[in-house]
Amino acid sequence: MDGIVVRNIERADDGAVARLARFGVATLHEAQGRARLMRPFMRPVYPGAKACGTAVTVLAHPGDNWMLHVAAEMIRPGDVVIVALSAENADGLFGELLATSYRARGAKALVLEAGCRDVAELQAMKFPVWSRAISAKGTVKATVGSVNIPVVCGGALIHPGDVVAADDDGIVVIPRAAASKVADAAAAREQKEDANRKRLAAGELGLDIYGMRDALVKAGLRYVDHIDQI
Amino acid sequence: MDGIVVRNIERADDGAVARLARFGVATLHEAQGRARLMRPFMRPVYPGAKACGTAVTVLAHPGDNWMLHVAAEMIRPGDVVIVALSAENADGLFGELLATSYRARGAKALVLEAGCRDVAELQAMKFPVWSRAISAKGTVKATVGSVNIPVVCGGALIHPGDVVAADDDGIVVIPRAAASKVADAAAAREQKEDANRKRLAAGELGLDIYGMRDALVKAGLRYVDHIDQI
Amino acid sequence: MDGIVVRNIERADDGAVARLARFGVATLHEAQGRARLMRPFMRPVYPGAKACGTAVTVLAHPGDNWMLHVAAEMIRPGDVVIVALSAENADGLFGELLATSYRARGAKALVLEAGCRDVAELQAMKFPVWSRAISAKGTVKATVGSVNIPVVCGGALIHPGDVVAADDDGIVVIPRAAASKVADAAAAREQKEDANRKRLAAGELGLDIYGMRDALVKAGLRYVDHIDQI
Amino acid sequence: MDGIVVRNIERADDGAVARLARFGVATLHEAQGRARLMRPFMRPVYPGAKACGTAVTVLAHPGDNWMLHVAAEMIRPGDVVIVALSAENADGLFGELLATSYRARGAKALVLEAGCRDVAELQAMKFPVWSRAISAKGTVKATVGSVNIPVVCGGALIHPGDVVAADDDGIVVIPRAAASKVADAAAAREQKEDANRKRLAAGELGLDIYGMRDALVKAGLRYVDHIDQI
Amino acid sequence: MDGIVVRNIERADDGAVARLARFGVATLHEAQGRARLMRPFMRPVYPGAKACGTAVTVLAHPGDNWMLHVAAEMIRPGDVVIVALSAENADGLFGELLATSYRARGAKALVLEAGCRDVAELQAMKFPVWSRAISAKGTVKATVGSVNIPVVCGGALIHPGDVVAADDDGIVVIPRAAASKVADAAAAREQKEDANRKRLAAGELGLDIYGMRDALVKAGLRYVDHIDQI
Amino acid sequence: MDGIVVRNIERADDGAVARLARFGVATLHEAQGRARLMRPFMRPVYPGAKACGTAVTVLAHPGDNWMLHVAAEMIRPGDVVIVALSAENADGLFGELLATSYRARGAKALVLEAGCRDVAELQAMKFPVWSRAISAKGTVKATVGSVNIPVVCGGALIHPGDVVAADDDGIVVIPRAAASKVADAAAAREQKEDANRKRLAAGELGLDIYGMRDALVKAGLRYVDHIDQI
Repeated sequence: MDGIVVRNIERADDGAVARLARFGVATLHEAQGRARLMRPFMRPVYPGAKACGTAVTVLAHPGDNWMLHVAAEMIRPGDVVIVALSAENADGLFGELLATSYRARGAKALVLEAGCRDVAELQAMKFPVWSRAISAKGTVKATVGSVNIPVVCGGALIHPGDVVAADDDGIVVIPRAAASKVADAAAAREQKEDANRKRLAAGELGLDIYGMRDALVKAGLRYVDHIDQI
Repeated sequence: MDGIVVRNIERADDGAVARLARFGVATLHEAQGRARLMRPFMRPVYPGAKACGTAVTVLAHPGDNWMLHVAAEMIRPGDVVIVALSAENADGLFGELLATSYRARGAKALVLEAGCRDVAELQAMKFPVWSRAISAKGTVKATVGSVNIPVVCGGALIHPGDVVAADDDGIVVIPRAAASKVADAAAAREQKEDANRKRLAAGELGLDIYGMRDALVKAGLRYVDHIDQI
Repeated sequence: MDGIVVRNIERADDGAVARLARFGVATLHEAQGRARLMRPFMRPVYPGAKACGTAVTVLAHPGDNWMLHVAAEMIRPGDVVIVALSAENADGLFGELLATSYRARGAKALVLEAGCRDVAELQAMKFPVWSRAISAKGTVKATVGSVNIPVVCGGALIHPGDVVAADDDGIVVIPRAAASKVADAAAAREQKEDANRKRLAAGELGLDIYGMRDALVKAGLRYVDHIDQI
Repeated sequence: MDGIVVRNIERADDGAVARLARFGVATLHEAQGRARLMRPFMRPVYPGAKACGTAVTVLAHPGDNWMLHVAAEMIRPGDVVIVALSAENADGLFGELLATSYRARGAKALVLEAGCRDVAELQAMKFPVWSRAISAKGTVKATVGSVNIPVVCGGALIHPGDVVAADDDGIVVIPRAAASKVADAAAAREQKEDANRKRLAAGELGLDIYGMRDALVKAGLRYVDHIDQI
Repeated sequence: MDGIVVRNIERADDGAVARLARFGVATLHEAQGRARLMRPFMRPVYPGAKACGTAVTVLAHPGDNWMLHVAAEMIRPGDVVIVALSAENADGLFGELLATSYRARGAKALVLEAGCRDVAELQAMKFPVWSRAISAKGTVKATVGSVNIPVVCGGALIHPGDVVAADDDGIVVIPRAAASKVADAAAAREQKEDANRKRLAAGELGLDIYGMRDALVKAGLRYVDHIDQI
Repeated sequence: MDGIVVRNIERADDGAVARLARFGVATLHEAQGRARLMRPFMRPVYPGAKACGTAVTVLAHPGDNWMLHVAAEMIRPGDVVIVALSAENADGLFGELLATSYRARGAKALVLEAGCRDVAELQAMKFPVWSRAISAKGTVKATVGSVNIPVVCGGALIHPGDVVAADDDGIVVIPRAAASKVADAAAAREQKEDANRKRLAAGELGLDIYGMRDALVKAGLRYVDHIDQI
């Protein structure tokens, strides 16, 4: 299945993406049942990075960024490019020149299970990138991979057209078909959290707001006045 | 010993804590004989974080933040909550809602040998957190742990009521009984460093200020003019 | 060869260093054929750090910063001190006092395959450091190493007097004798990139600018319209 | 999609599995175009482990092995159980008692992106396990996951019924539909390698057998007699 | 508290140690409520290592094994020496000569949060060691630490005289006062496991033996016949 | 300097290599002043591996083993091939076919800062390999590197023709010119250790044999009878 570029993919609905973009990654991850979160070794290359868009996927090989050029042609406005690697690699497959190209094609961001370079320039031009490493290491253009096939990046499965949301907390994948439903669940969750936040800020305890006291006792929790009573 | 909450703990003296709060972690660590420093994998979730307070301790389990809610009730103004884990874990056990609750109870900071989420919100509300990872991964509330027992966090032993100081350089634990003495030693050290800083800034060498030249020669150090003389 | 300090070293030409200082690490690394880059575990202790200078080299031992004091005397204005370790170590071998001394002697920066402390102070005084860890852990002064011998730091070989350039992307070593030639190559590369950047920003594809299409087909790349055509 | 057990899955053809079982992982990985290999942090818990079978998949949560009991009921003779985790975890989710149960149900092996315990007992009973860690850490049974849904384990995507082959070199996934074709390709590859092995053992060079000399020169390789000719 | 050697310590009762020695680490860890297990980065230096004895504790510094010589004098027959480090270190603090000395003094084993060398010789002489690394790196003898004070090793707190049990699965600490009680609990657990093992080996499911089916349904587990029913 | 093969190198003297081969890595490393040891992430792919020979060096690129074929032609009987990588990489650059070729050319072993595959076959044919990972991941043949230039492997500098000794404890490099002198020093050290081993085995303490007691007291060590005397 390597060496394939799929030209046409179905992208998640624009409206649903716009609604999902309002929420943080932690909220979206909870809203879809704590699933499809990338591993925490994937980090933004500068603080405050935030993005939400539809996935164009790339499968590349260690030390080789050829397919990132191929992917540029497949970008549509609103896309987030997702780069999976066939093996662990920290080389700098992406930098400011490619970011210039990706932005010109309409890409919002890049998520890359390899290294990224030119991080100062990327921050200056506000093109957000999440990667597993920062590295100036240059790459070759020698081996073909694929574009717009399902890939595993950061431990999560992504299909082309899925929604990818990323911020300082990490990266979450929302399947295309679930985008609208997850946006609803996130809104509901946020509303509930707003109410709880006010009560917590006023000094009420989560123990009481969430009614945990009985369950804790049932699970065996025991209170003592002093440590020598253990 | 699991499943216990100790209601009353003896906290380090307020005055001593206030004095310790003036110093950086590196100074405090030196002042108590280079001891009780957490391992460097524990990092602040945003730059510039700084805190000093009395420890409320928590023992939690991987992927489960139930005991962090239980701990909220035990917080007194000026506390720093310390969360140890029964096994290595990077899940996001703490976020902005719990921070709201902890702040309302008077907590100054959190130190957590697991993951933290909502880091942008925590930075915005200036609630400092030190953790081993940043992760949006949500948690369950299923298994009881303990509160206010001695714990090992970041490789350091902490008793409830000990002083915990943290900044960009790391986290150090000062035993409750030693708080005042360590504050004295830190002040003395800082005074000495102030004097040395002036001399170093003027171009004097540490070799001369600290009188190292003889010891170096005795230890075998040899100066040559050119590398081909080796 | 341990226990040696070499007083006189040949440093790269001032003019060449000044020209190299204009370029980023990624460009310099490419300009010399993708060689002599330190591994990505070496990171700046604060964002935006940037330096370029001539190497004074140090070989130190775990948990011992004695030789960093010895090195201070060997610093000439424009130097970057490079500290290699005889074994993996994350202790805080360098902090604000040594930085004060190094700056007074004319050093521009430090690159250290160990830990660094006082990072807030270093950022405030704008003394850039690249290290493998941030750690408040104090050190002893008990064992001699060497100064101004060839060392391996961050996986790269450095001779005293070589040029070291460092920024947010990493650290690259340019051999003394190659300094001028690499500066030329970097300038040529930058010029070429400037032209390409404009075309990429206008929406042209790297595929066309770099003429990759034929090579990709020859390498086996195949385009399909829909994923079910694979 | 969490909290689901799929009772009936289509398994790869018995004959194809038997043929695939004759080859090593490196050969199978090459035979299907260098794809679907798990990351090298997945290791056998004892040397010499080797297995090939059809995947029963499990999605479990950190520190919780409840779903491994649920999966036991789904095992058919010849299966290899694959356990994915919703977050990084090294706890000992599997040990000798579960191995006894799995073997009784016909399982050939376990692949687990978490910790394994009782490794001496597992070796004695010759039940092979590949895991990311060895850990005695016990687990709770509190949160449901899923069985027989597609999962990502060790960075590879696995569907229930796919073939999983594992040995000292790692773990590779062969899609159910491709099993027979990959077995053919592996046989062809092995035949070719047998021929080459004989020539290499006789002292012939790969340079000549594979005809690489021209391509190397074209790629810029240059031979010199002495290093001072560089 | 550094620079102290405590001559006399109270060791756990011989009989209790002998009883504990019959069990594996996983069983002992469960028997005391899943507590006091070292982190899984602590590994035996050769397979099949197994030991159980009373702790003589050492606090040493990176790259310095002086205190391991001091500790030798404090060893009594049946002891296991536990070496904690004041900072992360992988140097080879222990080898075959020290093992010869320790064995002559009656030590059964060593647990060391640093590196170990001479592993072939240690295996030949059957002196078991658990460490965080294997490294030939030699050490200095320059800085004093302590012997027989409470230490944190592998993330676990150990008091001198506590029982330490170690095998292929890891290392567990049993507080001196709890030794007899934990031995009882381990025996009870093993008895129960023996009964369950027989039933599991006969093909019965844990689901039924442990009566999990109702709890699973209550927790939301749902069975479907085919994946397209999700 | 990339893309170069140096045909003729000066190898260390045969007799010196034969004498060095009698010693373990830990002894050789001490005998040359605790220098030139590779980092402990370099491990043998099977236990009991041991080799000593003259270095043929290779600089390769991530995921590409082309230069390992080029190097085969440069091997002379008694060589150990050392493979450095231009960036961190764990792909399986070496396996049983190349080992067959290398052995036929007279190579004794391979040291590789990347991944190795076919480890069962390598153990069966007793061709020892030290690597940073075990991985079945196949590689391409697309980019030229160099053979027989100075390289950095495992953090150590190696010149072609240097002696490389490797065993279960790690890998050490002995410069060509120092081979005979280091063999002498190792023999002297071993003789001294033999004497000490006998005394230690008889129960004498290192404290007395090495005369450490005074230095310890001078360094501040203090003995107390009971812990409550601290």
